[in-house]
Amino acid sequence: MTVRPGFTGSPLDRADRLRDDPAAFDTALADPRARLLRLDGIDPVLDDAGRLCWTTLADRQAGGALLLLGLHDGAPRFAELRYDMPEAPTRSHSIFPLLDRMPASEAASYAGARSLIDWHLRHRFCARCGSADTPIFRAGWGRRCADCGAEHYPRVDPVVIMLAVHGDSVLVARQPRFPAGRYSALAGFVEPGESVEEAVIREIGEETGVAVRDVRYVASQPWPFPSTLMIACVATADATAITLDTTELEDALWVDRAGVAAAMAHADGAPFLPPPPFAIAHSLFRWWLDETAF
Amino acid sequence: MTVRPGFTGSPLDRADRLRDDPAAFDTALADPRARLLRLDGIDPVLDDAGRLCWTTLADRQAGGALLLLGLHDGAPRFAELRYDMPEAPTRSHSIFPLLDRMPASEAASYAGARSLIDWHLRHRFCARCGSADTPIFRAGWGRRCADCGAEHYPRVDPVVIMLAVHGDSVLVARQPRFPAGRYSALAGFVEPGESVEEAVIREIGEETGVAVRDVRYVASQPWPFPSTLMIACVATADATAITLDTTELEDALWVDRAGVAAAMAHADGAPFLPPPPFAIAHSLFRWWLDETAF
Repeated sequence: MTVRPGFTGSPLDRADRLRDDPAAFDTALADPRARLLRLDGIDPVLDDAGRLCWTTLADRQAGGALLLLGLHDGAPRFAELRYDMPEAPTRSHSIFPLLDRMPASEAASYAGARSLIDWHLRHRFCARCGSADTPIFRAGWGRRCADCGAEHYPRVDPVVIMLAVHGDSVLVARQPRFPAGRYSALAGFVEPGESVEEAVIREIGEETGVAVRDVRYVASQPWPFPSTLMIACVATADATAITLDTTELEDALWVDRAGVAAAMAHADGAPFLPPPPFAIAHSLFRWWLDETAF
Repeated sequence: MTVRPGFTGSPLDRADRLRDDPAAFDTALADPRARLLRLDGIDPVLDDAGRLCWTTLADRQAGGALLLLGLHDGAPRFAELRYDMPEAPTRSHSIFPLLDRMPASEAASYAGARSLIDWHLRHRFCARCGSADTPIFRAGWGRRCADCGAEHYPRVDPVVIMLAVHGDSVLVARQPRFPAGRYSALAGFVEPGESVEEAVIREIGEETGVAVRDVRYVASQPWPFPSTLMIACVATADATAITLDTTELEDALWVDRAGVAAAMAHADGAPFLPPPPFAIAHSLFRWWLDETAF
């Protein structure tokens, strides 16, 4: 089964070849087909079909910096960084209702822009020497310190998100900040010096005390809050006893196939409310139901 | 076939539960079983079996900071950060002969320490506000700005590394900096706003002009130069014409099964020299030979 997670399928060509070519960047800026992403703060402006809205470069603000998102059918697409924009909150509330309306491919284009803008807002200074003089280079995809020469690139933080599977049940959990009733897959950051597989085993163990083996990769998606790469996996558990890490989780429970199917159908009496369709945990539940069906 | 890449299998328990508990950290420091990783600059000191050497905390230097790597059979293991250490060069020469001698599990413990130390050396200042006052917290696994409050965590940069497969051949390439004769898998950083699968398709396209589909995940490893998560994949190509990106690559070529087998065996007349065993590209070639053998 092919998994098509949310935030994937952007039609933009990232046009890496243009980034190190200032003349090509200037040509893109002068292209009459060039378009600028419309934003409301850092949230997207959408049309009735949930699609991103674009305007011309004439609408750029004084003091802003244009970041080249890529090309769409050859036409340059930019986003504008303004240092007076508010930083995106780690737990955004305004964006989720918008995401419910967006096709995955539109959300994907937006995700790249949001993560890039947010990274610039939080990384104006050189982490190596403290300098405030870090001009943007590579058409928006990096900053280079004018004082020490260090080059800084946008962060992408890999996160594992996974289902422990025992027989015909999976382990789901909720964080205190989740909406009432919602449970999802366990998740955690991959650390320096570990593999995806090791991170899956470690995180499930830390958060629930459940030992797993045989980690299998399922799919991935970008997640722009602020900029993670979600790596979805399943792993096999041999026992079900749970020791909850209450600093991370409010609850964890094993749910059987019928329960997961009921949750995904939003059925009355379902054991939990599922994550939204744009979250890869949703894709992971769907994959598990379909892939392992008899 | 189970793939066991280099830099995996560390025996250390990362002991995340201790990191937010200053009293537990102090207890670990006072534990008579506590040990300190021996380093030569940022390179490891090895015994005759290629194993890491450890000393007692009595050998810590004035002005250094102890980072809690984890627990080994319950005994705390630390590495020392000294701000007078030289930054690790991006292209290290001294470390590779050492890695040839190290078991993967030892290399894994070292990888976490090296990436963590190197991150601190390059991130002493707050990227958000420029402050030099960013004390270490979480037992070494982060810095918190005393001025603006921003929390900074060690970077892990996801990188895709992959073989395009056409019939019974794979696409290999060499960068100008490679040792003479060496070819490896293509690789590139995953960017904000893209999935693993999209990054694989984009990077192969950018570097060689080869269009691929059906990306399949194979395995992962950490790579501590300076701190990447290598995500190894294969993908299917329908055509073999190559348009080389000469800013990235010196050459790319298709090699059939016999050629890859000869390269991996270091046979006379082999079409290329393979990457070293601790590199996941080596595991990827081996996996492809074994998994798809008739």
